Amino acid sequence: MLGEFDLIDRYFRDAAARRADVVLGVGDDGALLRPKAGFDLVMVTDTLVEGTHFKAGASPHSIGHRALAVNLSDLAAMGATPAWALLALTLPATDESWIKEFAGGFLALARQHDLALVGGDTTRGPLSVTVQAVGYVPHGRGLRRSGARVGDVVLVSGTLGDAAAGLHDSNEYLRGRFDYPTARIALGESLLDVASAAMDVSDGLLADLAKLTAASGVGATLEIANLPLSDSLLAVQGLEAARRLALTGGDDYELLFTMSEANWEEWRRVWAERSAADQSVAITPIGRIDQHEGLRMTLAGKSVDRTALGIERSGWDHFEA
Amino acid sequence: MLGEFDLIDRYFRDAAARRADVVLGVGDDGALLRPKAGFDLVMVTDTLVEGTHFKAGASPHSIGHRALAVNLSDLAAMGATPAWALLALTLPATDESWIKEFAGGFLALARQHDLALVGGDTTRGPLSVTVQAVGYVPHGRGLRRSGARVGDVVLVSGTLGDAAAGLHDSNEYLRGRFDYPTARIALGESLLDVASAAMDVSDGLLADLAKLTAASGVGATLEIANLPLSDSLLAVQGLEAARRLALTGGDDYELLFTMSEANWEEWRRVWAERSAADQSVAITPIGRIDQHEGLRMTLAGKSVDRTALGIERSGWDHFEA
Repeated sequence: MLGEFDLIDRYFRDAAARRADVVLGVGDDGALLRPKAGFDLVMVTDTLVEGTHFKAGASPHSIGHRALAVNLSDLAAMGATPAWALLALTLPATDESWIKEFAGGFLALARQHDLALVGGDTTRGPLSVTVQAVGYVPHGRGLRRSGARVGDVVLVSGTLGDAAAGLHDSNEYLRGRFDYPTARIALGESLLDVASAAMDVSDGLLADLAKLTAASGVGATLEIANLPLSDSLLAVQGLEAARRLALTGGDDYELLFTMSEANWEEWRRVWAERSAADQSVAITPIGRIDQHEGLRMTLAGKSVDRTALGIERSGWDHFEA
Repeated sequence: MLGEFDLIDRYFRDAAARRADVVLGVGDDGALLRPKAGFDLVMVTDTLVEGTHFKAGASPHSIGHRALAVNLSDLAAMGATPAWALLALTLPATDESWIKEFAGGFLALARQHDLALVGGDTTRGPLSVTVQAVGYVPHGRGLRRSGARVGDVVLVSGTLGDAAAGLHDSNEYLRGRFDYPTARIALGESLLDVASAAMDVSDGLLADLAKLTAASGVGATLEIANLPLSDSLLAVQGLEAARRLALTGGDDYELLFTMSEANWEEWRRVWAERSAADQSVAITPIGRIDQHEGLRMTLAGKSVDRTALGIERSGWDHFEA
């Protein structure tokens, strides 16, 4: 067995303690943290396993980025601002160059979000990475999946389907969308008190929207013509396959959220200005929350079912078409 | 891939939200927690991997217990009171009876410590378990490894070497000490403002004491005749092998700590009364902190070196004999 903190110490020392709320970082039995007053904490964890979440031989820099990004994406979905993370790294052997590259990918993203790595564990075994991340939301204002109301607009950030295509395609843009997902932290923060429900798109739009509507006790109708598709995805896959990937492909790590029509009319202007100023991600309305449980789809306003779109039932739960 | 929270939901639902500081437990993108005022948080993580930390085919009930216990032991070493945990479980296949037994072992220990499981992730891959646990310590009073001072008494809880023997021996008591380690939470809490340094014994006494003294910038001398050994260990292994296991065997999860002579004289009476009343674990003085870096050993007051005790250098770092 590798020494518990030896490797992490060596390559992650830089990231250990740059925040006022970190009393003691990496190196003891645990980290000592002093939460800011007036905030709730959001705690999340996600694991990436070789062969399940990334291919054998994948870039360690990308794995380091993704292991943190998928957790930050969960924080974004709750509207949280990242603060601390723990890293549990299981490696088949001590490979310093692998660890160095992995740390590079992890720490670059951590620095971008002022997140402190405050501890971890390094063990020997088949390659996998579990990250636990903690963030702040103002007291009582964390976003949930369960607040969508009939009549709310269904919205999604960025474009969908790119990552699923990038897993198998050599197109540089699409591969980058799989290898280096962007956690929508600033977007999540801006949705506090505005969105009625939110989650991140990790298992595919239909699967995740089904979870959001089930948690809220409502249904939804999606307009397929409105799905945001990247030029690269359209060029490589064509319109029909692009739509299928947008509906069922996973690993996008965009935010899926709902808000009242009134909030949307107001907030869209604020976000559009911000987007123009600092190239924040674009937001697209893709549907509407309705009363009848389950999901329905329209194409240019006309009802379509999943078979017409070439979509198998498998791949998500709770789907009705 | 298994549904992210489906399995955890099914078997862990009972444990999700019984604490006032849990706003939202399992089931959303993350947990929402409201830390109590006046406390620091201690955050720890530890991974158990099949083949490294337990044998293939080991009892899932024991694995569930151990996965949480080794994390609680880290909390105990900081003097923390357990509050919340996240569970990241990687399984080669969906095996409901395995998960049910695992959950039984995990939750029995969680209930014992009023700990809420507030989230997690279930993924497919080689069997491993990563737990992250969070506990409270009163503001600014968390125990550290780095506070040992020259002249302090070196103390250890319980008996040493049992777990290392139990990994290979069929003796019921010794096996139980490996399969069901006890996190010394009440002891850790009672050491706040009393102990000068503390950590848990997970890699073996010599290895861990070397870390504690290095972190404190001091050395220590151990009296081998004082090592606390169980009757079972002595019966099965004999005195010499028992001492070797006590010095170098891992997985004891006892607490190793130091305090001034004055504090020891006072606190030992308090703890002895408590121990008599509720069978709390016994504490044994096993050495003394001194100025010269590294570790030295005596047997009935006479200096001995590791070779005389039949101990190889390998197995721990920083050791000087």
